[in-house]
Amino acid sequence: MTLRLKFLGSGTSVGVPMIGCDCAVCTSSDPRNKRFRPCVLVETPDKRVVVDTPPDFRSQCLANNVRDADAVFITHTHADHVLGLDDVRRFCVRRGGPLPLYAAREHLEMLSRIFPHAFDPALRQSGWPQLDGVPIEHSQPFQLGSTRVTPLQLPHGRSSVTAFLFENNTTSLAYVTDCKPVPQPVIERLRGVSVLVLDALRHQPHLAHLTVNEALGVVEQVRPGRAYFTHISHELDHALTESRLPAGVRLAYDGLVVEV
Amino acid sequence: MTLRLKFLGSGTSVGVPMIGCDCAVCTSSDPRNKRFRPCVLVETPDKRVVVDTPPDFRSQCLANNVRDADAVFITHTHADHVLGLDDVRRFCVRRGGPLPLYAAREHLEMLSRIFPHAFDPALRQSGWPQLDGVPIEHSQPFQLGSTRVTPLQLPHGRSSVTAFLFENNTTSLAYVTDCKPVPQPVIERLRGVSVLVLDALRHQPHLAHLTVNEALGVVEQVRPGRAYFTHISHELDHALTESRLPAGVRLAYDGLVVEV
Repeated sequence: MTLRLKFLGSGTSVGVPMIGCDCAVCTSSDPRNKRFRPCVLVETPDKRVVVDTPPDFRSQCLANNVRDADAVFITHTHADHVLGLDDVRRFCVRRGGPLPLYAAREHLEMLSRIFPHAFDPALRQSGWPQLDGVPIEHSQPFQLGSTRVTPLQLPHGRSSVTAFLFENNTTSLAYVTDCKPVPQPVIERLRGVSVLVLDALRHQPHLAHLTVNEALGVVEQVRPGRAYFTHISHELDHALTESRLPAGVRLAYDGLVVEV
Repeated sequence: MTLRLKFLGSGTSVGVPMIGCDCAVCTSSDPRNKRFRPCVLVETPDKRVVVDTPPDFRSQCLANNVRDADAVFITHTHADHVLGLDDVRRFCVRRGGPLPLYAAREHLEMLSRIFPHAFDPALRQSGWPQLDGVPIEHSQPFQLGSTRVTPLQLPHGRSSVTAFLFENNTTSLAYVTDCKPVPQPVIERLRGVSVLVLDALRHQPHLAHLTVNEALGVVEQVRPGRAYFTHISHELDHALTESRLPAGVRLAYDGLVVEV
């Protein structure tokens, strides 16, 4: 094991349960049907990274005793993926300085508009979030300690999203959320990845997200060692959905740890 | 009773417990020491209003079974007060249309930049948040159904904050968070209010927030029927702090209901 991923959130934009919904999943007592918005902690042999910071980020850190990270990666700037970013201020207090945030240029620009107090050194104050934006180039690998990370661009409705492929000599892990479709060059780049985490919103078609069947189609083409579906809506009961998935494909849940 | 206030959150910007803090309050088992970021639900005889939408807003609605509101009031646009605004999308689904959001012009402009998809009718989509911005003028009362609301401007560090005074023929309630100092004209306008909810961060002085002693000084001048302190940091243990407060002054906690 050289890579470890923990799901801090596996739900769609409104989470599960949804506010004001009395459906069987939203009122379920199965803790795997309680889903914060999408966020994962990735631990490499020498670094810890959080991917995305949903509005639930503080609650997610408390629930999982996450106290610090070496970097933040951002997939895209939709509200459900970034509006908890201010809460990395606690990481900055702990490390005594700014935290690197890796994102595509368009996403860095948007984040700088929402969180000027975090990105502009002239505005920074002790106790506030402090972020050093690191622009990434899609399909251009960079090193995160001993691990090679390749950011990949995918379409997501009217915008685009960054997937992250973590690789070292023995293993690999790809985190691919909020996308539709998965372009053929991305499928080829991911082929044979040890673990694939993939968007699978629900059964009903959606303009900007994969359905479970569409995600299964991607899995068939990528042929990962294992796959985990995430960004899950209240249409999917955990136990029922998992019981119908093929071998090697699981549904993520908050708190799930995957060792790669 | 003609006004009812419920605290959905009574904590400071980082909440209590804070990420990565092992102090006695952050590790306390007293549920009154678990504080989401500041948010209240105000119910008048004919309207329900949420004041501020912290990042915790979805969790706060779920914890308190809040499914809808007639309006959102915003005190100011710091992250801990507004970054859960996207989650009012569930209220919009329920009501089948946009929700009015009352805020000062400067705050409306900032919110429109952070949430363009909610404010710009050309970008709106079914299932997304839909907000009709209603600009308020400080010190100019407006009607919310049968209740008169007067927004009042107070200084808050380098920015300013809006307090809301709810009044009808028999009673009154003021929600005054994130401020320092409380200007004399505001003290005079609030004098004798039935219930005063007031910023009281901690004991140690802060540039932009009242300490407990400073808040007690304001209470002495305003002479409300009762006062509740909010926006509380981890420095204040609930039971210990309350035991030292004078008669008629209490410390708020998440879930507390005040009938006015």
